[in-house]
Amino acid sequence: MISHNIVPNISVDCVVFGFDFKKLNVLLVERELKDEESGKLLIKDHTLTGYHIFEDEDLDTAANNILKNLTGLDNIFLEQFAAFGQLDRVAGDKDKVWLKYINKGFAERIVTVGYLALIDNTKVTLHLKDKNVQWFPVNKINGMEMAFDHKHIFYKALEALQRKVKVEPIAFELLPDYFTLSQLQKLYEALLGTSFDKRNFRKKVSQMHYVIPLKKKQKGVPHKPAQLYLFSREVYDKTRKGKISFII
Amino acid sequence: MISHNIVPNISVDCVVFGFDFKKLNVLLVERELKDEESGKLLIKDHTLTGYHIFEDEDLDTAANNILKNLTGLDNIFLEQFAAFGQLDRVAGDKDKVWLKYINKGFAERIVTVGYLALIDNTKVTLHLKDKNVQWFPVNKINGMEMAFDHKHIFYKALEALQRKVKVEPIAFELLPDYFTLSQLQKLYEALLGTSFDKRNFRKKVSQMHYVIPLKKKQKGVPHKPAQLYLFSREVYDKTRKGKISFII
Repeated sequence: MISHNIVPNISVDCVVFGFDFKKLNVLLVERELKDEESGKLLIKDHTLTGYHIFEDEDLDTAANNILKNLTGLDNIFLEQFAAFGQLDRVAGDKDKVWLKYINKGFAERIVTVGYLALIDNTKVTLHLKDKNVQWFPVNKINGMEMAFDHKHIFYKALEALQRKVKVEPIAFELLPDYFTLSQLQKLYEALLGTSFDKRNFRKKVSQMHYVIPLKKKQKGVPHKPAQLYLFSREVYDKTRKGKISFII
Repeated sequence: MISHNIVPNISVDCVVFGFDFKKLNVLLVERELKDEESGKLLIKDHTLTGYHIFEDEDLDTAANNILKNLTGLDNIFLEQFAAFGQLDRVAGDKDKVWLKYINKGFAERIVTVGYLALIDNTKVTLHLKDKNVQWFPVNKINGMEMAFDHKHIFYKALEALQRKVKVEPIAFELLPDYFTLSQLQKLYEALLGTSFDKRNFRKKVSQMHYVIPLKKKQKGVPHKPAQLYLFSREVYDKTRKGKISFII
């Protein structure tokens, strides 16, 4: 009864964040449309990584499949952050032209479920080139042209991410397994758009018992190699999970 | 082009929480189906308060309309917490019978967007009786029969609520404008399923500058009237909003 057809009015969109040790980036797909006769460029902008769900896919599976296809990775941190159903969300002039052009039976009104994806940049490089998929610095997005309501969705995802990293240890998903304290500080600074005093930051980190110093140092760096740390989910769960900290 | 028809495969479901000064409750609708000939009871269980969205409604409007219809209230705290799209979520035996019986053109597969609603119990009493809508204690839900995947959605909403009340001042939505510290303590105890030492609790509350003591006391209570407090969103925003507390 259930076939591998798309559901015309339901999609998922992944807002994929990565950190390159300097800044926070987001994965976007180029959307380009040229007039077939004149060759004139009709549309050139960017979309989030998303697609319609299929009739035989649940929402999480759909989002996972998109990411796997894109990055080759299977175990990506992926979490819903909101659904978007504004009446005019795919009804912009360019978007109407595009939907007509690709002609895949998408509905005039589409509800999309937004997923936040966090990627360890150092693990993903290979599969991107072919697909017009690129990392863009988060702070450049405002000046870019984007398809549909994807700029709105992007900013909602960024807000959700900024809210979440303050109360859950998900920022570590953006780092490699072993990281330095400078990298951790840069990450939080990039995430929250702020800067921290180095001494205060390290003092606070020393109170996070789940950020564990290793007897290892960086290798192959042009400066004095720094000590490496890891995030222990186990220690976090034991010491923090469920802790009531409702003084807000 | 857009008509006031339902969208057959997209719905919203509101998980409406209320607090009666003793325990946390949730609003459920009775679902009953009798065989027309024999009068035999075929289905009797409960659903969350939800419905399909209409083609001319966005998601938030749909959820608002459902709540307004139910409670007469317009300004209810309402926030998406997750979307649900499991393949079998409306395919239980009872649910199939029900969908066939009501025969409203709903799809075989429905994605629903879950909303968390928080209601000040003292403001809602009137509109409930006609509609087979009733408050049920949150800790009785596990033993109840519920339609579709609504029990699953309920528990996901409760988890989201418990997570949110620890980091945002939304619990106050469940209290009247003026409340006592005992009521506030009971509320947090009900929300988090725990109990607090009264002295510690009050000490912590005294550090929340946005919980403001009034020169008013309770009236018409059989015990010594307690002092009343209010939650100030303004003070909260000034003193806490955006505060970085990423030590988690």
